[in-house]
Amino acid sequence: MIHFNCDYSEGAHPKVLEKLIKTNLEQTAGYGVDQYCLKAAELIKEKCERQDLDVHFLVGGTQVNLTVISAALRSHQGVISIETGHINTHESGAIEAIGHKVLALPSNDGKLTAFQIQTTFDQHFNDENHEHMVQPKLVYISNPTEIGTIYSKAELTEISETCKKNDLLLYMDGARLGYGLCAQDNDLDLPSIAQLCDVFYIGGTKQGALFGEALVICNESLKKDFRYIIKQKGGMLAKGRLLGVQFIALFEEDLYFEMATHANKMAILIKEAFIKKGYGFLVPSTTNQQFPIIPDEVLKSLKENFEYCFIERVDNKHSAVRFCTSWATDLNAVEQLIAEIERI
Amino acid sequence: MIHFNCDYSEGAHPKVLEKLIKTNLEQTAGYGVDQYCLKAAELIKEKCERQDLDVHFLVGGTQVNLTVISAALRSHQGVISIETGHINTHESGAIEAIGHKVLALPSNDGKLTAFQIQTTFDQHFNDENHEHMVQPKLVYISNPTEIGTIYSKAELTEISETCKKNDLLLYMDGARLGYGLCAQDNDLDLPSIAQLCDVFYIGGTKQGALFGEALVICNESLKKDFRYIIKQKGGMLAKGRLLGVQFIALFEEDLYFEMATHANKMAILIKEAFIKKGYGFLVPSTTNQQFPIIPDEVLKSLKENFEYCFIERVDNKHSAVRFCTSWATDLNAVEQLIAEIERI
Amino acid sequence: MIHFNCDYSEGAHPKVLEKLIKTNLEQTAGYGVDQYCLKAAELIKEKCERQDLDVHFLVGGTQVNLTVISAALRSHQGVISIETGHINTHESGAIEAIGHKVLALPSNDGKLTAFQIQTTFDQHFNDENHEHMVQPKLVYISNPTEIGTIYSKAELTEISETCKKNDLLLYMDGARLGYGLCAQDNDLDLPSIAQLCDVFYIGGTKQGALFGEALVICNESLKKDFRYIIKQKGGMLAKGRLLGVQFIALFEEDLYFEMATHANKMAILIKEAFIKKGYGFLVPSTTNQQFPIIPDEVLKSLKENFEYCFIERVDNKHSAVRFCTSWATDLNAVEQLIAEIERI
Amino acid sequence: MIHFNCDYSEGAHPKVLEKLIKTNLEQTAGYGVDQYCLKAAELIKEKCERQDLDVHFLVGGTQVNLTVISAALRSHQGVISIETGHINTHESGAIEAIGHKVLALPSNDGKLTAFQIQTTFDQHFNDENHEHMVQPKLVYISNPTEIGTIYSKAELTEISETCKKNDLLLYMDGARLGYGLCAQDNDLDLPSIAQLCDVFYIGGTKQGALFGEALVICNESLKKDFRYIIKQKGGMLAKGRLLGVQFIALFEEDLYFEMATHANKMAILIKEAFIKKGYGFLVPSTTNQQFPIIPDEVLKSLKENFEYCFIERVDNKHSAVRFCTSWATDLNAVEQLIAEIERI
Repeated sequence: MIHFNCDYSEGAHPKVLEKLIKTNLEQTAGYGVDQYCLKAAELIKEKCERQDLDVHFLVGGTQVNLTVISAALRSHQGVISIETGHINTHESGAIEAIGHKVLALPSNDGKLTAFQIQTTFDQHFNDENHEHMVQPKLVYISNPTEIGTIYSKAELTEISETCKKNDLLLYMDGARLGYGLCAQDNDLDLPSIAQLCDVFYIGGTKQGALFGEALVICNESLKKDFRYIIKQKGGMLAKGRLLGVQFIALFEEDLYFEMATHANKMAILIKEAFIKKGYGFLVPSTTNQQFPIIPDEVLKSLKENFEYCFIERVDNKHSAVRFCTSWATDLNAVEQLIAEIERI
Repeated sequence: MIHFNCDYSEGAHPKVLEKLIKTNLEQTAGYGVDQYCLKAAELIKEKCERQDLDVHFLVGGTQVNLTVISAALRSHQGVISIETGHINTHESGAIEAIGHKVLALPSNDGKLTAFQIQTTFDQHFNDENHEHMVQPKLVYISNPTEIGTIYSKAELTEISETCKKNDLLLYMDGARLGYGLCAQDNDLDLPSIAQLCDVFYIGGTKQGALFGEALVICNESLKKDFRYIIKQKGGMLAKGRLLGVQFIALFEEDLYFEMATHANKMAILIKEAFIKKGYGFLVPSTTNQQFPIIPDEVLKSLKENFEYCFIERVDNKHSAVRFCTSWATDLNAVEQLIAEIERI
Repeated sequence: MIHFNCDYSEGAHPKVLEKLIKTNLEQTAGYGVDQYCLKAAELIKEKCERQDLDVHFLVGGTQVNLTVISAALRSHQGVISIETGHINTHESGAIEAIGHKVLALPSNDGKLTAFQIQTTFDQHFNDENHEHMVQPKLVYISNPTEIGTIYSKAELTEISETCKKNDLLLYMDGARLGYGLCAQDNDLDLPSIAQLCDVFYIGGTKQGALFGEALVICNESLKKDFRYIIKQKGGMLAKGRLLGVQFIALFEEDLYFEMATHANKMAILIKEAFIKKGYGFLVPSTTNQQFPIIPDEVLKSLKENFEYCFIERVDNKHSAVRFCTSWATDLNAVEQLIAEIERI
Repeated sequence: MIHFNCDYSEGAHPKVLEKLIKTNLEQTAGYGVDQYCLKAAELIKEKCERQDLDVHFLVGGTQVNLTVISAALRSHQGVISIETGHINTHESGAIEAIGHKVLALPSNDGKLTAFQIQTTFDQHFNDENHEHMVQPKLVYISNPTEIGTIYSKAELTEISETCKKNDLLLYMDGARLGYGLCAQDNDLDLPSIAQLCDVFYIGGTKQGALFGEALVICNESLKKDFRYIIKQKGGMLAKGRLLGVQFIALFEEDLYFEMATHANKMAILIKEAFIKKGYGFLVPSTTNQQFPIIPDEVLKSLKENFEYCFIERVDNKHSAVRFCTSWATDLNAVEQLIAEIERI
């Protein structure tokens, strides 16, 4: 059985693991104030070309999302997101559990637009009963989105300007940020993201680390007392250096980008095989997640040797599914899949 | 200026006030365990034709909603509601602030259907990632709905059966319950509501009391320790007898129903005037809220002497607005409005 | 049976009720933005001799406390209070339910000292693990305290300066503020309280209103969006004018202070009777709550005609109890009690 | 510099790491339902000699505590703990942030007694205002305690019986459970803990794992839907197998107990050196944490080569500090410390 169902089927990239092994017996301070975390933070600040950033390392994405949102909002404020946003669908109500409503907007391509943000903002403040409604305050976007699409620099700039104009905070969930930054049609980079967002995170779990996400706080107003809230929400790792060590491995020699580039290449090979076969897609994606729409009998056959992820019924004979690659995806495995696609 | 914008523009019905005056200097126990609250609870149980009910008196609707939902749900559970449900739109995120997601479904007529509930339930439990999603557990409906429509006995029965089958709790927000029960096309009554719902409330604030809602808990599993949670959420009135006294006034001689019948009659007169004029409605309503769609220049003219409530733009020349009556609506005021409608 | 167990056994002072009756049929805007609320707010600002205050009217004390604290704190911050503070003992965990720890300190006389506040603050920030602890941010005091004692102007000034120095917010729970301000040994007044506190409330429920508390926000940083949070926590009364009307009655002719002065006088008569009898007190109180320590057999006898409130066992033959007066306490009733005390 | 300040200064025991390396490239399911987690759960159930247990693996202790308590309590319920309990002091208000009060009781030896629990319970339910107070529902104990002491089987049995009698849940925080179970004077074991507690966890982070805690749910009523809440609170590790793999390494060959025994031995050597020197202790401890009371000038000298943890000032010339050992503590390092103690 070959897994294409997600990008966290294996452990860590060998170079990440190696660094953990090498530092294993060193004694360091706990809770993320050790030299490795400091060095990893420095590396990330360099990549972002800004020194006035706060970098925190947490274990997983839901944890990061709920910690950021808890730190950023007052109790009457909510989060603008698209309906398929991870915080709105797959975090078991984590955001509501810390007290905040997700104001969910529709989207066809997984992306939020500046226009939607402005409209939502205006509708709220123009309503004479706005004090009876949740006040929009933070905008949550994922890049790449949950369905593999990416924001262009122009789109993100427009979103950022709309947020600034309306005193909204912009937060980018970068669980798969590397795959986005290494997509062939991408024109964003870390410095522009650090410029345009108030806070974002660089995902490690789905991009070659054992676990771990690097949260980057750009907006001064969000920095104060942040570590209290990490601790309170259960996100402060005792042996914090495990996170620092891994992010050093990911960023000191661009391993992070190499791995993402590889994963994207593998995904494009799969994509092309489906296109050749004449299948459509939920959305066009250039990142490591591909969402082909496939006849049921074909899926049944594929299922024998390949794990993929069911997304939704499209009509009574077709389903959209997800094929997902990662740093660990072997060309050989991809070729087996392609052969099978061609064969059916 | 004559107010048709809402049903809480005045104080209380004179008979309610009279009873408050008469009992004003008596000394009673505090916090809702006095003889008046006990008697009012008895009256309501009689009207519901069931003795095994717990009745609590709270001050306002948002308070009741958040207290019930906090008492009923575990942290990973959410509330099914329609998008225009009061808890989803006009309570400033009260439900999220106590930790729960509102799972909002679309509706054209303001009503939830048994089919929608079953579908939502099935989608959740059939999803292999359901542990990553909010678990639907309580169904919230308003009767009458936020746009004046009412549930038939058949509809409520089907909803109730769907809930029971799937171990969901059914909660009816009855902020305007009287108007619904007294609508000409209504076939529900208090005994059937107490049979079909797990918990519901009988609104006083919008139906002739100074303030106050009578919460009726039918399901045994929801009764335990409920008063702790009323107190915790700030809903336990020190001079609780004020609530008991008012509900006695409302129910000892069917004043509650008389007032609602009057309000509905006034609303139908207004409705007919708009129909005669050829205007359409957002939805057909037989209760005290009417939602005509009116040309902008007509609205502009009406605004000079009458307060109504803006709902939404329908097209670039028309808006839907709300005209609302109550126990206090004077026939004379209605006739002035009708004359004005006919005149324009 | 004569009630001395609490100060909310009756309804409202007749003048308060009269004003409610007189305005009952007027049509006003809802939710506290009507002319009566505006006028009542003006009256209170005049009494405080400051125009830059925000005044909000809420129904009850627990509601006010949880709304203020929710509005003031971020999630990692807590409230300094004495152990017997109302928020720490008698609000069913309302403060924790909105996410905040009460950092409770011991006290013999019901009062917090500037020294305790400074020590708590220093301990926190000097601890190298302070990010693992709740950060003290708001200081909660009650005046009069839960056991009837009052703060002097010197004490409150010292507390206020300590708070300002350490960037802590000072909040005074004034559920019984009038009794404090009218105590014979009091040297505080509304202007000095508005100067020294960041936020405080003037209690109505226990001082002659049917219900209602007037919250006064002095610190600019606490004013923003406050009404959203009142609504979210269920504290926004639909017929808000009921609160405005009552506070006008209380303050337009100093009725508030007259009633408190009467209650205190009645309490002192009772106090003197107990002193004459040779009984001690939990603490010396000059306000409407007296806490005599009484032999059990005497209590048993008193219980036949008088309701009081049990506080605690002092030794195996004595208990401390509370006798409480109010605006409604009749001199006749007090004389009966005194006669009974002398008789036993 | 040699670290005796905590038991999480290093990475993982080499055997734990080895197993992670060996399984690194395998593809498994995510979120803790892989074969390694299942096997680790089996091992733990065997050690507990009970099959009807639910075992969940989480990353850290605060996360476990807040998840368990959120799953177990309704909103009006609180947790009985001693004042120095980890949840009361060093989790940045995590328990309050999920809505629950910690009802903190004093203790000299870090342990809660059955008598204290019964008294707290009785005081609550005998108070006529108990609905205005937080209801005690869960008892939190740490074993070993935060100051190194351990519960005897007799003590735990008495606590357990008191809890059952009063319908209270008993939860044991076992962040350092191994050190307790391997202490020379211990008479508890995993089967008896699983019998006496409703829920407990076996700590990995402080006992040789990179990270990870194994939560064991014994009481049927706590099992339902638990994984939803792990996910919601941010505690569900994507590559869950990392936890399973580590706990297999810890328990398949009793490595867990070997490491704890070693750490305790090292601690006793240090303890004896201090005793020999004539120093007293905060409490007598037989586990890996020792709390000697040391003259300030001696501490100053020790600080040059050894890291310890400051606890509190005892008088103006002495402080209590913590020396802590772990699986990684080298005999050589201990001997250097002892030599230094003797030398001074």
